[in-house]
Amino acid sequence: MTLYATILQMKKLLSNLDGWLVKAHAHAEARKFDPNVLVQCRLAPDMFPLSRQVQAACDAAKFAAARLAGKEAPSHTDDEKTLDDLRKRVAAVVAYLGGFKASDFDGADERTVSLPRWEGKSMTATGYFTEHAMPNFFFHLTMTYALLRHNGIDVGKRDYLGQLTMR
Amino acid sequence: MTLYATILQMKKLLSNLDGWLVKAHAHAEARKFDPNVLVQCRLAPDMFPLSRQVQAACDAAKFAAARLAGKEAPSHTDDEKTLDDLRKRVAAVVAYLGGFKASDFDGADERTVSLPRWEGKSMTATGYFTEHAMPNFFFHLTMTYALLRHNGIDVGKRDYLGQLTMR
Repeated sequence: MTLYATILQMKKLLSNLDGWLVKAHAHAEARKFDPNVLVQCRLAPDMFPLSRQVQAACDAAKFAAARLAGKEAPSHTDDEKTLDDLRKRVAAVVAYLGGFKASDFDGADERTVSLPRWEGKSMTATGYFTEHAMPNFFFHLTMTYALLRHNGIDVGKRDYLGQLTMR
Repeated sequence: MTLYATILQMKKLLSNLDGWLVKAHAHAEARKFDPNVLVQCRLAPDMFPLSRQVQAACDAAKFAAARLAGKEAPSHTDDEKTLDDLRKRVAAVVAYLGGFKASDFDGADERTVSLPRWEGKSMTATGYFTEHAMPNFFFHLTMTYALLRHNGIDVGKRDYLGQLTMR
């Protein structure tokens, strides 16, 4: 298992998430409600809405890849208002992740990460990935799934995992 | 990033989950409802209840470590009825994961995994980990969090991530 394999897995899971948004749109049309109502739905009043969950999943993957590779991540403005806007955000990050090669992560074991809110402290890049980026990525990915499932969208474990590489 | 580091991270996150169950118990006592009502709560009527989410998170981590190391995993009977029962299940799996050493995973790249429902097909052990065990682990871990948060338990991102290894 390599860092690159895990970044590719994040890319795959974001593509899966895009499929959930397609199902959400179709569900809303069949039930004749505005699909964009779903963009603002929350699991608790003091949790982020769907839009912010999707943005945060995208950002966790984007920053993970960039920081492990020692690159500057592209910025996104977090102004998505519709399911289609969110699909474009996901597509942009899937394309960004697709631009990495295995060799981009060769120096990851020697890199460190320090975020402004850490007040001068740092983590090793691989520690940051395992303890922070990966759990955060999965948190926001699965909260998106939970929100859609809770609102009646017919997504299942197959939509979550996607196709497995069997032989 | 090594397989062993990721197994240790799963162990840490299950310990964090134990803390959410402690908070859930205290919340129920403060609000004077039976804490074990939470064991049966669901995000959707055709989703697993909290008890099964905790069991599945435990199993995903247990089987991941065992299969990567080429060992037989201990079996658990899935008969937990209370929050305390679930805490014991989590503690058993945390202890099991704590018994692995880095060298147990040395041969993982050469191992394969084949589950009965895969009808004779197999995955590489590392492919199984990245594409199946890890996303499943996070799925059931975060559904547990989502269920508690949705039911008013005061858990936050710090309870989810736990302490980060800063320097």
